[in-house]
Amino acid sequence: MQFTSEISSPGITERTFTLDDVTGVLWSPTDGTAGAPLILMGHSGSLHKKSRGILARAFHYVTDYGFSVAAIDAPGHGERPRNAQDEQWVAALEEAWNAGDPIDEIVTEYNTSLAERAVPEWQATLDALQALPEIGPAAPVGYGGITLGTAIGLMLTAAEPRIKAATFGGVLVYEALTEAARQITVPVEFLLPWDDEDIDRHNALVLFDACASQEKAMHVYPGWHDQVPEFAIDDSARFFLRHLGPGATSTI
Amino acid sequence: MQFTSEISSPGITERTFTLDDVTGVLWSPTDGTAGAPLILMGHSGSLHKKSRGILARAFHYVTDYGFSVAAIDAPGHGERPRNAQDEQWVAALEEAWNAGDPIDEIVTEYNTSLAERAVPEWQATLDALQALPEIGPAAPVGYGGITLGTAIGLMLTAAEPRIKAATFGGVLVYEALTEAARQITVPVEFLLPWDDEDIDRHNALVLFDACASQEKAMHVYPGWHDQVPEFAIDDSARFFLRHLGPGATSTI
Repeated sequence: MQFTSEISSPGITERTFTLDDVTGVLWSPTDGTAGAPLILMGHSGSLHKKSRGILARAFHYVTDYGFSVAAIDAPGHGERPRNAQDEQWVAALEEAWNAGDPIDEIVTEYNTSLAERAVPEWQATLDALQALPEIGPAAPVGYGGITLGTAIGLMLTAAEPRIKAATFGGVLVYEALTEAARQITVPVEFLLPWDDEDIDRHNALVLFDACASQEKAMHVYPGWHDQVPEFAIDDSARFFLRHLGPGATSTI
Repeated sequence: MQFTSEISSPGITERTFTLDDVTGVLWSPTDGTAGAPLILMGHSGSLHKKSRGILARAFHYVTDYGFSVAAIDAPGHGERPRNAQDEQWVAALEEAWNAGDPIDEIVTEYNTSLAERAVPEWQATLDALQALPEIGPAAPVGYGGITLGTAIGLMLTAAEPRIKAATFGGVLVYEALTEAARQITVPVEFLLPWDDEDIDRHNALVLFDACASQEKAMHVYPGWHDQVPEFAIDDSARFFLRHLGPGATSTI
């Protein structure tokens, strides 16, 4: 892991990094992170590691709760070039979108491929983050992401025992996601914009029902799919604090 | 308002009261309530002002947040005798229940009548509570209730401008409730047990959609209809704190 830039503002330090061909960013509280939770944040499709939604949650988590937050660009997103196959999917999506045709099959294929590539990238990133002295192997780890960040996050959380709590959102459901959800037993919280015109609410309800977690909750609020109100961001911070913070008891 | 008993345990004082033929209870923090929110709690059908769910929320609100909490018995519930018509509804409900027949029509009639009687009782109770020096007219007022407490609460919140924030839950929907929800503009939070076998989740979704509130959220968690997990109770306390506590800005 190579840090490539560092900027500090009051209470928060932002460092970008590369790990092989993965580009990422780590936000840390300036007054130390000993034992603090590390939250991995996955961005939405077509967006990137420093999109507005990620920044809002990262800033709140770091400055108000003292968490560390890391985000990486998904394959072919942000600073990472698309491969030829990615280009085909993106072109097919744009074409279908403009023609008003259904996009479900294309999204399913594309998200499946992105998640297959992103899970080992996240695992390598987590290895590298845990090797940093300011984080270390004992920092409790959570994951948060909506849309594409949910598709990747469900696969990652099912596969990765270091993730002890996760927040998800709406995403087009396909069988591999439902199957991953069935394997998830850590506490989960869904953040679900109720008026998403692109992703029917039914998708998130299926995933919520599928999760095998003993503690699960879904927070529904009005709005479109990348709108997470500030109070819901704070709810999610408290969810992580409850399960990953000092004295947390239900992180089994 | 006549206080009829008083018991204190560390941090909380419980006083029962009567107001005409209404029987009620007021829980207060022992270290004073100046300017603190007052939360009115409505119990479920067939239960009473000191049922387990009310006690759990009242204790948490008072001892952890310093709120005052008041609950009254609905007409024909708890310490209050049923009238002849109530007895008929209860008998009809038991008969339908035992026979496995649908109860929707009976519940709608019964809840409609209970809410019609309970709204002015709550308003008179609120007048009397605000006349107490330890509460006063300036205390911000919220309402919380599930099932029957939601039916009464929707009618009360639509009619009563002193209520500035409310939490509701699942309840069998009928037109007057949807109509009341459409008139509600204060912040609302729904607490919805997802696996309620008696009240289909669809009912709460209809009411949630109908509320005209700019800030509304629905918190879904697994469980049957009177099971509110501790973390959801705390979420609801923070909801009231956000809208009724010191510095609250969105209580218009």
